[in-house]
Amino acid sequence: MSYYFSKTINDSFENALKKTTESLKNEGFGVLTEIDMKVTLKNKLDVDIRNYKILGACNPSFAYKAFQVEDMVGTMLPCNIVVQEYEPGKVTIAAIDPIASMMAIKNDTLGAIAEEVRGKLKKVVDTL
Amino acid sequence: MSYYFSKTINDSFENALKKTTESLKNEGFGVLTEIDMKVTLKNKLDVDIRNYKILGACNPSFAYKAFQVEDMVGTMLPCNIVVQEYEPGKVTIAAIDPIASMMAIKNDTLGAIAEEVRGKLKKVVDTL
Repeated sequence: MSYYFSKTINDSFENALKKTTESLKNEGFGVLTEIDMKVTLKNKLDVDIRNYKILGACNPSFAYKAFQVEDMVGTMLPCNIVVQEYEPGKVTIAAIDPIASMMAIKNDTLGAIAEEVRGKLKKVVDTL
Repeated sequence: MSYYFSKTINDSFENALKKTTESLKNEGFGVLTEIDMKVTLKNKLDVDIRNYKILGACNPSFAYKAFQVEDMVGTMLPCNIVVQEYEPGKVTIAAIDPIASMMAIKNDTLGAIAEEVRGKLKKVVDTL
């Protein structure tokens, strides 16, 4: 079992980010956080990696439902989408599978919510 | 198996956040993201929850090691710490156990790195 859904598209890194954000929005997810790993690792360790950003996406209705049945679920939120440029113009977008990331949480009600979010994130990636 | 390490302290929410950030710093973690769930859910859904923040903590050296052996690991980074105030002056801090959140990733080298990060996050919480 993979722990993410991914797709590779032929586009610029910036366009891939825009398309991903738009696709997330269509499924009700806002981007709450954005981590630029390339810049962070350059600044902190002076190492060079490819373009690599982590978008933290949140669908407020589902987050609220999840919080109500498992109040420590925030340790696994938001749902991350990694956008990385393996070579110029070839960008891979990978969304976490919340069923995989939350498998250590034994809570059937949360599991049902994660299943719905899973479907939405899969659609976000599929429609890119 | 729990999926987080937690501790409850008698202090204000703001002080708890400061102490947590300081304790993270002592173990080499910077706070890259901060999500105010109370404000987010109020704005988006007009619901009221207790003070609840999600800090996204990153230890650059470990993040870089993890990236080198598992390049989709960003779907599970940064490591989250939830700070929530169950009642005024009573705040619970919970750090994700990376072994639990990453159990769906079958990668022994990553597992060894997660084990080290686990020890550090446990110390962050224990020393609060």
